[in-house]
Amino acid sequence: MLIRLGYDIQFELAAPAAMVAMLHVHPSRASQLREPDNLRVEPAVPVEEYIDTFGNRCSRLLAPTGHVRLWNSTLIEDPGFPEPPNLTARQQPVEELPPETLLFLLASRYCQVDQFSHTATDLFGATQPGWQRVQAICDWVHQKVRFDYSSARPTKTALDVYTERVGVCRDFQHLAITFCRCMNIPARYATGYLGDIGVPATGVGDFSAWFEAYLEGRWWTFDARFNTPRIGRVLMATGRDAADVAMTTSFGFARLSHFDVVTEEVSG
Amino acid sequence: MLIRLGYDIQFELAAPAAMVAMLHVHPSRASQLREPDNLRVEPAVPVEEYIDTFGNRCSRLLAPTGHVRLWNSTLIEDPGFPEPPNLTARQQPVEELPPETLLFLLASRYCQVDQFSHTATDLFGATQPGWQRVQAICDWVHQKVRFDYSSARPTKTALDVYTERVGVCRDFQHLAITFCRCMNIPARYATGYLGDIGVPATGVGDFSAWFEAYLEGRWWTFDARFNTPRIGRVLMATGRDAADVAMTTSFGFARLSHFDVVTEEVSG
Amino acid sequence: MLIRLGYDIQFELAAPAAMVAMLHVHPSRASQLREPDNLRVEPAVPVEEYIDTFGNRCSRLLAPTGHVRLWNSTLIEDPGFPEPPNLTARQQPVEELPPETLLFLLASRYCQVDQFSHTATDLFGATQPGWQRVQAICDWVHQKVRFDYSSARPTKTALDVYTERVGVCRDFQHLAITFCRCMNIPARYATGYLGDIGVPATGVGDFSAWFEAYLEGRWWTFDARFNTPRIGRVLMATGRDAADVAMTTSFGFARLSHFDVVTEEVSG
Amino acid sequence: MLIRLGYDIQFELAAPAAMVAMLHVHPSRASQLREPDNLRVEPAVPVEEYIDTFGNRCSRLLAPTGHVRLWNSTLIEDPGFPEPPNLTARQQPVEELPPETLLFLLASRYCQVDQFSHTATDLFGATQPGWQRVQAICDWVHQKVRFDYSSARPTKTALDVYTERVGVCRDFQHLAITFCRCMNIPARYATGYLGDIGVPATGVGDFSAWFEAYLEGRWWTFDARFNTPRIGRVLMATGRDAADVAMTTSFGFARLSHFDVVTEEVSG
Repeated sequence: MLIRLGYDIQFELAAPAAMVAMLHVHPSRASQLREPDNLRVEPAVPVEEYIDTFGNRCSRLLAPTGHVRLWNSTLIEDPGFPEPPNLTARQQPVEELPPETLLFLLASRYCQVDQFSHTATDLFGATQPGWQRVQAICDWVHQKVRFDYSSARPTKTALDVYTERVGVCRDFQHLAITFCRCMNIPARYATGYLGDIGVPATGVGDFSAWFEAYLEGRWWTFDARFNTPRIGRVLMATGRDAADVAMTTSFGFARLSHFDVVTEEVSG
Repeated sequence: MLIRLGYDIQFELAAPAAMVAMLHVHPSRASQLREPDNLRVEPAVPVEEYIDTFGNRCSRLLAPTGHVRLWNSTLIEDPGFPEPPNLTARQQPVEELPPETLLFLLASRYCQVDQFSHTATDLFGATQPGWQRVQAICDWVHQKVRFDYSSARPTKTALDVYTERVGVCRDFQHLAITFCRCMNIPARYATGYLGDIGVPATGVGDFSAWFEAYLEGRWWTFDARFNTPRIGRVLMATGRDAADVAMTTSFGFARLSHFDVVTEEVSG
Repeated sequence: MLIRLGYDIQFELAAPAAMVAMLHVHPSRASQLREPDNLRVEPAVPVEEYIDTFGNRCSRLLAPTGHVRLWNSTLIEDPGFPEPPNLTARQQPVEELPPETLLFLLASRYCQVDQFSHTATDLFGATQPGWQRVQAICDWVHQKVRFDYSSARPTKTALDVYTERVGVCRDFQHLAITFCRCMNIPARYATGYLGDIGVPATGVGDFSAWFEAYLEGRWWTFDARFNTPRIGRVLMATGRDAADVAMTTSFGFARLSHFDVVTEEVSG
Repeated sequence: MLIRLGYDIQFELAAPAAMVAMLHVHPSRASQLREPDNLRVEPAVPVEEYIDTFGNRCSRLLAPTGHVRLWNSTLIEDPGFPEPPNLTARQQPVEELPPETLLFLLASRYCQVDQFSHTATDLFGATQPGWQRVQAICDWVHQKVRFDYSSARPTKTALDVYTERVGVCRDFQHLAITFCRCMNIPARYATGYLGDIGVPATGVGDFSAWFEAYLEGRWWTFDARFNTPRIGRVLMATGRDAADVAMTTSFGFARLSHFDVVTEEVSG
């Protein structure tokens, strides 16, 4: 399956501001790209690319005063089916985990592991370790939290989601990630494209958030928001939580004036 | 100057638990060590060493049931004077910062950059960028926050410190780090040995926390707790905040039964 | 001046639920009513009236399953000019305050006096006690906080308003009330009708929140949201904060399906 | 049984400060006093007495600069047995509750009812309404929260207690009160004397906090901290939470230099 990917994001700036964008397809899928995946900027300004600590492809630029447009369109080959679940994937004890996964057991801005250990044990202490436990966490969050776009706010933490029981996709994942870490399962936040492929049109937008849990030697995709296998996830970035992987971060004020994303299957 | 460093930390465990320790002298000072710097464990169990994402030297072990002792003693050569201040160190605009410093502008568990931008601008917007601004931040935190050991708690954030105005060394640094990041100055948390060398005995203990700010091409040491140059800081680890650099993290319950640290000048 | 007041609030209930409404004109203005001020309910169910601890006129009913409508229309005589300011109103020391005002110095759900004492002193400690101090508080809140309907949420506290700097009318008042109490000035939350009388049409809705501060022997009206004298405020209820004076509180789920308020000058 | 009650509380003040004390036996037990119950102050200053909104007997004074002592000793007759439980006490629906109890269903400073409704329903939705439900709440809090004096802090809320699972007596009650209110059971905070009468000496101090729940027409005593019937509770004050009933509130800085309480059975 081929998927057309693209975005068109526009800002108005009253003064120049540095900007960091995480708008590329993740390096792990670079070999499946069938068209270049470059950040295009109007007006043309120099763009510096780098790979961050988490392995994500980032771009940095000095956005000038006035109207600024970040956009691209690219094409990727996709297996056309969801990652198959592995119901028997084993939970590794902490002493066997690869050292680079240990960071994803710790507390982060929106995932207050230190405040959830008791609640996580109350809720999930009796579940079977491994895949079943992560799935139980996803099921709980999916059932207990209500989706509502109007409830989004940038400071919302896992604890807020737990008390308010309403949120957007990032909020569902923050709560599930926190529970996983409390149960000693490394979990990291993931963002990327997720279109209405193979499902009824949802109008939910084409960038989405999900998360990855580390079981039996590798990272697996989970999604406490949709909680059902989905075709056409295209990973862009992973990090400890949403604080690490904002699509765009502006160091100075930039008013968003346009936001459009494309993710659609292209007939071969 | 030679400084004797050491620790003796003991736990009681009702069941085996994985443990991560960050008890080594930081790799950046390894060449100044005059004795081996190895984590010794009693009873003897395998210890795995690795370098984490932030460049810190870490140890991991499976602590057995019963009494566990982590200890070491080593000797380091120290310049014997504090890092000299650089009052004219320039603040680099975000677009010129090395990419690996950008992570230290973001919000983290105890440093809610997203909740402090207005307050930081109110308090420090009129100060001179660069060294003077970091110093103004340290002065404010140092004057406004009162030190009190009994006020420590593991969940205390920069916002808690700001409202309660009382804390221990880590709390002072979390608030200062948050203000620096809000002003677009990369800032990271640092832990290490800090003994009563060149100052009256304070009885404040020998592990301490301070922070580093990135100005004019390098990281500089600041300390909002003491806010005065100090001899004999020996860095152990740096990270986004205290969540990243706990001296010991136990994945399972371990009761601390003994804690002793040595940092003292040794006459040559 | 005569002002027509009215509301039409409708709910859908899946099961019967007790409801408390605070939809009457405040007893302090009862003598100015020119038409009856009764809560009308459809379908007709018994309505119990009582005066709460704070002196507000309340109604309680058992709302039945299905569609429920609360409405009324009444007419009040209004002086037609704003309460004149009293720039020299003195701040009474706590030992001289009437005992019944002391409650309004304490912390309440949305006004965390205990977390703001240092910030309040930093910001307002140098202002002149009394009216000037309350006005300085209103000016600060009015200038620093941005109005945005979409930022409303039921759990938002004064501390959230302080960090986020965005809110709706109740949020402005909660922050100002908290600052007043920190400075030992009794302050209470007020709700009522506030129409576009004597000002350009704002489309801001006709119920509003403001607050009252106790100075020189009486309560005075302040409004950190509009921060300008306004004609036609009609008080409905006062309390410690919004938790005490919700227009309607439903003890069980009731979906709001219609909400309409009228406040307009009637030509004599 | 006769119980000797008394306190001796001393402060140091750098400047005069108004003080409110709630150190009297509650009016509901005044008829059982066998000695006068007056607040004595050294140096002698005028003391004004009043009854607050909640029916508590309060004292107000202007504490002078220097050393100030508040003390008294009195004698009360006590039934000598705990209030007997009423396992069948019915939970009244909200529409039948006396209006003056409705305030105790609302959110207050330390009891964030608005943030706990989902958790309360998860935990207690399946319990039997009435006495059994309040008891289930007490049992849960008693089992899940660990007592630790060193964890006390003035800003600690029910949500903090829920996440940290550690606290002092007031913290246990705040969490239990919040859960009760979420389940539509009026609950109020209570403070008073509680000595080691009829139990092994605990060294827990002689002022304590408990709470009252409203069931079947009256308020009943519950205590999520001890969760066992106790002899010799002597009520001093009730309120929405600890914010309403501080033993002493000082409007200005007063350093506590001495604190001593007596509660002991006196042989007739």
